[in-house]
Amino acid sequence: MKDLVQSVKPRVFQQRGGKVTRSKVWLKNELIRVGLAESLSTYVMMSLGLGSVAQVVTGQGAFGQYLSINLGFGLAVAMGSHVGGKISGAHMNGAVSFTMCVFRRLPWKMLPLYISAQLLGSFLAAGTIYAVYYEAIHDYCRGNLTVTGEKATAGIFATYPAPYLSLIAGFFDQVTDVFVLSMLLLCLMALSDQKNKPAPAGSEPAFAGFLVLLIGISLGSNSGYAINPTRDIAPRVFTAMAGWGSDVFRAGNGWWWVPLVAPPIGGVLGAGLYKAVVELHHPHLSKAGGEMVEEAVPLDKEINTIENMCV
Amino acid sequence: MKDLVQSVKPRVFQQRGGKVTRSKVWLKNELIRVGLAESLSTYVMMSLGLGSVAQVVTGQGAFGQYLSINLGFGLAVAMGSHVGGKISGAHMNGAVSFTMCVFRRLPWKMLPLYISAQLLGSFLAAGTIYAVYYEAIHDYCRGNLTVTGEKATAGIFATYPAPYLSLIAGFFDQVTDVFVLSMLLLCLMALSDQKNKPAPAGSEPAFAGFLVLLIGISLGSNSGYAINPTRDIAPRVFTAMAGWGSDVFRAGNGWWWVPLVAPPIGGVLGAGLYKAVVELHHPHLSKAGGEMVEEAVPLDKEINTIENMCV
Amino acid sequence: MKDLVQSVKPRVFQQRGGKVTRSKVWLKNELIRVGLAESLSTYVMMSLGLGSVAQVVTGQGAFGQYLSINLGFGLAVAMGSHVGGKISGAHMNGAVSFTMCVFRRLPWKMLPLYISAQLLGSFLAAGTIYAVYYEAIHDYCRGNLTVTGEKATAGIFATYPAPYLSLIAGFFDQVTDVFVLSMLLLCLMALSDQKNKPAPAGSEPAFAGFLVLLIGISLGSNSGYAINPTRDIAPRVFTAMAGWGSDVFRAGNGWWWVPLVAPPIGGVLGAGLYKAVVELHHPHLSKAGGEMVEEAVPLDKEINTIENMCV
Amino acid sequence: MKDLVQSVKPRVFQQRGGKVTRSKVWLKNELIRVGLAESLSTYVMMSLGLGSVAQVVTGQGAFGQYLSINLGFGLAVAMGSHVGGKISGAHMNGAVSFTMCVFRRLPWKMLPLYISAQLLGSFLAAGTIYAVYYEAIHDYCRGNLTVTGEKATAGIFATYPAPYLSLIAGFFDQVTDVFVLSMLLLCLMALSDQKNKPAPAGSEPAFAGFLVLLIGISLGSNSGYAINPTRDIAPRVFTAMAGWGSDVFRAGNGWWWVPLVAPPIGGVLGAGLYKAVVELHHPHLSKAGGEMVEEAVPLDKEINTIENMCV
Repeated sequence: MKDLVQSVKPRVFQQRGGKVTRSKVWLKNELIRVGLAESLSTYVMMSLGLGSVAQVVTGQGAFGQYLSINLGFGLAVAMGSHVGGKISGAHMNGAVSFTMCVFRRLPWKMLPLYISAQLLGSFLAAGTIYAVYYEAIHDYCRGNLTVTGEKATAGIFATYPAPYLSLIAGFFDQVTDVFVLSMLLLCLMALSDQKNKPAPAGSEPAFAGFLVLLIGISLGSNSGYAINPTRDIAPRVFTAMAGWGSDVFRAGNGWWWVPLVAPPIGGVLGAGLYKAVVELHHPHLSKAGGEMVEEAVPLDKEINTIENMCV
Repeated sequence: MKDLVQSVKPRVFQQRGGKVTRSKVWLKNELIRVGLAESLSTYVMMSLGLGSVAQVVTGQGAFGQYLSINLGFGLAVAMGSHVGGKISGAHMNGAVSFTMCVFRRLPWKMLPLYISAQLLGSFLAAGTIYAVYYEAIHDYCRGNLTVTGEKATAGIFATYPAPYLSLIAGFFDQVTDVFVLSMLLLCLMALSDQKNKPAPAGSEPAFAGFLVLLIGISLGSNSGYAINPTRDIAPRVFTAMAGWGSDVFRAGNGWWWVPLVAPPIGGVLGAGLYKAVVELHHPHLSKAGGEMVEEAVPLDKEINTIENMCV
Repeated sequence: MKDLVQSVKPRVFQQRGGKVTRSKVWLKNELIRVGLAESLSTYVMMSLGLGSVAQVVTGQGAFGQYLSINLGFGLAVAMGSHVGGKISGAHMNGAVSFTMCVFRRLPWKMLPLYISAQLLGSFLAAGTIYAVYYEAIHDYCRGNLTVTGEKATAGIFATYPAPYLSLIAGFFDQVTDVFVLSMLLLCLMALSDQKNKPAPAGSEPAFAGFLVLLIGISLGSNSGYAINPTRDIAPRVFTAMAGWGSDVFRAGNGWWWVPLVAPPIGGVLGAGLYKAVVELHHPHLSKAGGEMVEEAVPLDKEINTIENMCV
Repeated sequence: MKDLVQSVKPRVFQQRGGKVTRSKVWLKNELIRVGLAESLSTYVMMSLGLGSVAQVVTGQGAFGQYLSINLGFGLAVAMGSHVGGKISGAHMNGAVSFTMCVFRRLPWKMLPLYISAQLLGSFLAAGTIYAVYYEAIHDYCRGNLTVTGEKATAGIFATYPAPYLSLIAGFFDQVTDVFVLSMLLLCLMALSDQKNKPAPAGSEPAFAGFLVLLIGISLGSNSGYAINPTRDIAPRVFTAMAGWGSDVFRAGNGWWWVPLVAPPIGGVLGAGLYKAVVELHHPHLSKAGGEMVEEAVPLDKEINTIENMCV
């Protein structure tokens, strides 16, 4: 439970257990440090991810297909993770940050900083990709920025449901989004569980990328895999301002709020499922001369230990 | 012969050599622990694998192609392996569990637990993917759930032979399935053989995923690479219950039993071939000062050693 | 800040800190050694990269698609990095060498050697690929070597802007190119930052390849991802000589100079952004008994330290 | 120069330096051991590689595209390398074995054993894939086994030149084949050069696979990347016997001998180029307290050292 978790917990709190008393100036600097890293990693991930969508949409098949987008977001998540790395943990996703708070791997008071940094990074990335693909987008849609229809381009920036997703009152949409996020967090928990079979040391960013690639390949078609609330709302607001208008909030029967609400629920469900089915059953092991020996630890003490590791 | 094998042997039996006497309560808890992990890893693998088929079929080419399915199952196997990891070994495949029993890497008395856990995980995954893709499937087939024909959707959940596979009395079908499984197990044996060139430590799940990707790319078209009996029968039963009816057992001249019978045979053949051609010829080596020195061990003692390592 | 950087700094200067006094003969030999390695790695990268374009263009879809080119250049960069490896650092890109000089990871006096070696390698690779694909190219364009038009083949060797890129006076072209390079260098800085989450040791070439694959997938369509001045100009000169004529300089409103000017600017911006937002905020850490302890280092001394590490 | 090379040198000769005197029985057993491993690894690689071609050809686009074949052979080489692993080195390619002999990494007297084992493995793999895809092939070509034409199927088993390759008297064909092999061996030398930037320890098979994938993507279209004489001739003979007839030797103006002659030449050229440009310029380094110190070794002694390492 060490590697991905450590990377998930900012240094501010890692060393709170004493040793060094820090001034308020130090704390403020640390918050800026974490916020900047989270923002930059989100910016990198979103720029390269949205870029892959823009390239496929405006290229009309000549410059990649749906699989390119899956690969694009997967690799972009890996690169973003390397940028934010050990400093902020590079969540790049409000639902991940929220779930980490619920399971006490991130203090609640850090959540607003993470969310703000993610929103800022996403918004700037949407603006950048619009500038970079300005001519390509306008050439493709002949200057007519629309949210739905054959030459719709709003889907480059935010997610919209597939047409059939509005048939049965959007109920299944939300089931889907909850499920997708629960798979994401369940697997992230497994990849960071040092008592199980975690991702190889140093390869955590790459494996997070493989996971996002996989989710795009297997659960991407229903709703553009809307697995990230901060990734979704900031570019949506950008498009509303940049010329697509209020349609971005009206499309899909006002679907815009689903990617905000469903992912955090799914994230907590998935991470909780892993904890309940796998993690809580781990025997207490300690290394003694290279051999695994079972320890007798009363249950309540164990829970305290987990808490200490996380706060 | 250490890494993948250890991960393949549940802790219940790893420590049976003495040291700690355990109560029946402890054993029961261990069985639950192993069963839950095997079930959850199968569920994750199957959800993400079936999801990739559903996305390609219902997307009609817009959301991925055959290669996406190959990648989907490959990555899904890797993720499932991380979830079940060191606890159950994450076989996720009844033919793998069976072969491990034959070669004494898993006790026969554990087989029913593994099979049950795999069936449960597969069945729940089929149900989940049906819910998640409910609208997409019904939109695609216009509510007409069929096993054969142009808009058939049963192939999302279980495997069916390609049309030409029924020409010559299904004989070659079974040859194919036996061959596919023998390749799978032969390579798994090589990847876990510590005296040869095994998968890099910690990367065993990823390499198992690459192997499944490869088999999908090179031996997938004949019968939807029916390499997994538990993966196949549970979703088939689900579809029979969920609206596709008894056609799921009649299609392909009653082909449904082939993926149950052929894979275990192939698995034992492939693993046995590797043992006979490569593993049995390994010289007896022990590390002495970093150098490899050959030991004189009588043959019968060697066999005992292997047995001890496995039971 | 150790691994990729070391590989980026030739041995000539690594050991300048004293210890051994070297004769001029030794220095000359070292320069030849570095130049040969940089040239050969560029040659390998360019041959295999250009080959993937040639295969897709002349194959008309039968032997790969746009994604093949992305994969081709990504893997080619990884292989080229292994060839030049620890000797020259395998920049294979004039903009990377220039940025390394700006941030004092490569002495300015080495820049001409690197640029020359890269130009030589690129030029020879263009010639080789023309020979290897001679029949395929002439069969495809029926002997009519053109820079624009339906059967244009000049794009196999150098980059040309997409048609719509010339609408608004080429301003956005340059924004794009600057942005692409800044993403490349920003991520390369992160992948080599030992105080953050660097690429796993030994896998730096592979991760550089993944990065180039990602950039091709997400920022490739506008201008053929013209991220490399030396990669671009040498094959362009080759085509001018080999039969395509002076059109290679006239196409896209005389666009040929953009890949020469924009990448170095982007590289410095991207690397500077990473330094300003992430690297400068790193706390001073030293390992003491496996634990991380914070040191008190005055700011000016830190800057000196960084300089010493780089020169 | 340790890892890939060791794997390339069979144990028979690794320990010849003394220590243990071995009987003729031991030597014979060792030869059988090496031959079996080389044969099985070639069989696995060829079965899975040819399978990917058969799937794409008979699937007519429904079960994969050209990129699938590139991935198929790349992954198949990686898996085959794990099977033959440390025992035979898993050359699986007569041109690689030949080049290893030329550069004294394999004794010449071992060459016939390697070639025979590779031919046997290839031949059996061709037969297996014909059986597995028997119905698919006959369904595709309606029982008419042809070497050229629209529904030709001989290309599943052996390589044939692209049509335009016969225009200019086959001269450029041979240039191409020589070049392809020289790239392969040049990169293999770099990946195994421990004084440069080798493939990460344990990942040598995966990187050999990436290299073959890359060559398929960038140099595959001209002649079906005929980079392997033993891979080519054995299946060609099989098809001649299995019903395609003597056309397999007549097609492409009797092109069949080119994949036998060109690869060994290319292999020696490529490996020699790497040695001349990179390897011979390595300074003599030895580790002293973690630091690299330059040693004074006379040139003739160095050459002896290399010989000792290899024989």
